[in-house]
Amino acid sequence: MKDANPTSPARDAGAKTQAPSPALLFDTINGYHQTAAIKAAVELDIFTALADSSATADAIARHAKASPRGVRILCDFLTLLGFLTKSGERYSLSPDSAVFLNRKSPAYAGGTLEFLLSGHLRGAFDLLTDAVRKGGTAQAQDGSVAPEHPMWISFARNMGPLMAPAAGGLAELIALDPVRPTKVLDIAAGHGAWGLAFAKKFPGAQVVALDWAPVLEVARENARAAGVQQRFSTIAGSAFDVELGGNYDVVLVPNFLHHFNTADCIRFLRRAHAALRSGGKAAIIEFVPNEDRTTPPGVAGFSLIMLATTPEGDAYTFAEYTDMLAKSGFSAPVQHSLPASMNVALVAAKS
Amino acid sequence: MKDANPTSPARDAGAKTQAPSPALLFDTINGYHQTAAIKAAVELDIFTALADSSATADAIARHAKASPRGVRILCDFLTLLGFLTKSGERYSLSPDSAVFLNRKSPAYAGGTLEFLLSGHLRGAFDLLTDAVRKGGTAQAQDGSVAPEHPMWISFARNMGPLMAPAAGGLAELIALDPVRPTKVLDIAAGHGAWGLAFAKKFPGAQVVALDWAPVLEVARENARAAGVQQRFSTIAGSAFDVELGGNYDVVLVPNFLHHFNTADCIRFLRRAHAALRSGGKAAIIEFVPNEDRTTPPGVAGFSLIMLATTPEGDAYTFAEYTDMLAKSGFSAPVQHSLPASMNVALVAAKS
Repeated sequence: MKDANPTSPARDAGAKTQAPSPALLFDTINGYHQTAAIKAAVELDIFTALADSSATADAIARHAKASPRGVRILCDFLTLLGFLTKSGERYSLSPDSAVFLNRKSPAYAGGTLEFLLSGHLRGAFDLLTDAVRKGGTAQAQDGSVAPEHPMWISFARNMGPLMAPAAGGLAELIALDPVRPTKVLDIAAGHGAWGLAFAKKFPGAQVVALDWAPVLEVARENARAAGVQQRFSTIAGSAFDVELGGNYDVVLVPNFLHHFNTADCIRFLRRAHAALRSGGKAAIIEFVPNEDRTTPPGVAGFSLIMLATTPEGDAYTFAEYTDMLAKSGFSAPVQHSLPASMNVALVAAKS
Repeated sequence: MKDANPTSPARDAGAKTQAPSPALLFDTINGYHQTAAIKAAVELDIFTALADSSATADAIARHAKASPRGVRILCDFLTLLGFLTKSGERYSLSPDSAVFLNRKSPAYAGGTLEFLLSGHLRGAFDLLTDAVRKGGTAQAQDGSVAPEHPMWISFARNMGPLMAPAAGGLAELIALDPVRPTKVLDIAAGHGAWGLAFAKKFPGAQVVALDWAPVLEVARENARAAGVQQRFSTIAGSAFDVELGGNYDVVLVPNFLHHFNTADCIRFLRRAHAALRSGGKAAIIEFVPNEDRTTPPGVAGFSLIMLATTPEGDAYTFAEYTDMLAKSGFSAPVQHSLPASMNVALVAAKS
């Protein structure tokens, strides 16, 4: 490993290309540094300081009321992660940061940190070794699927804005009659964004949101803000137990099934099937990894969250959802991508 | 975003290539999931289960005394991170995992988690927003550079094996007279691996290790294990204050200077200069980012650790070290890569 050109100050790049490297190991052990860096950047509103133009660490520090040295080191880290670009001493927003991390953007997603870094989720990962031993969450009381778990209020309050583009995209995918009265059931509605996209697009659509009672307060607020409260109603309780009503044109199932085992998914899908009118559609919005379960990374990685936080949940593949839908009386699903989302929609008709 | 081919079950890959995506944001917020996953894998010894051949989740689970379902989800996650490969249902070690994560490997680095995930380091990152505001660690008592900080005992106990290949590489780079008695001073020696590599290679070398007294216990154990205790002695105390002795052929400065501001680095380097014989060499082993301070990622990212854990430390560039060395009476340094390490060595002669 001697430097072939000992008079050169340059890094002898390439010499170690095939040599063993602990770089990935350290990056991964230090994953929590990334969490801390993005949290600090959002708390100090670094990205909004760059909303209108590039800036130096000194200028950003004035906006953030922070130390220039601290901001310089943080911004270099945000640059190497890909959130910023750096030219000379000036930092600029990446295109994705301009959309999701600038507070002036309608798709600002900084609020998601409150949910994604909640004590419940962090605590679940502190117990991950035990979860692997057990094959499901090591948290008390079934983790996130415990009845009325308070984390869903934080979910509803913080994750809605991020879902809006995808929800709008889904409403474009499913054609409801614009004149005739139609009915949409939104399961585990949370913020209500999925159902509300249908209410906004289709003036004849009645939307029924189902969730735990305290969570529905958030959905109702959002319905009022969207001006569709006259066509918005709610059902409080468990999607497995409460009366769902009937004759729906669409049942939306957004990021719900991944919390359960396949038998429970089928049990729920049969209830959804019974609640649909003939020819009605189920739209399952989900993290659907490829059949190898390891790609795409952000989607396949969702499975670990289910291991950490639920007794038996998983990120199911297209083949698995196709099988569950067939066993519940549905046609084979069609998979659609959704805007600005790692979720896809699987749309299947009541057959 | 409608699916152009609604009968195809395939993901319409590529459609979102240029569209905004929150994927990087979520990956980064969820960085702590990566920390938890590698910690669980090391605690359950997943990698050693694959030391001799590929295996299914069921077989790994028997070795790990864990649930097949939990192991399958964890191994899929380790695969998407790059630690494993997956073919059908069988997982295999990546080349780097075989070197660093298999307990049967002499370069096994699983012990580094105890140091890198210590309460001290995690606590420093919990206070990162405050550190950015302040421009230095928000921990009490100057963080990791407080006198006799106990974290250095964990460092010495856990980080040594990982450094052994790089230390051996450094001893190859610096030619000491194999016959004449020579003297090597190892600053902030910790585990002692850097100095011990010289003791092992050069039978005439006397090695003097400097560190806090409780840390030197670990270095002495390692000197005994290497069978060089007759040529190994210690100096307890601060490298800025204690008597260093003189007439050294080499002063090793491994991962020490990054804890301090440049004025203190120069102050130390002048002491090292005074302790060297004429023509003797300083070898600074360090994380040295490129001049842009954002590449290579693993190296440039080290700066954030110094922000979180020290009052004024940093990952200095080659130009900055060249300047500090010039101001301390040294020649311009030559930079060498080191085996299996993100560190490089900057070697400069007393001029």
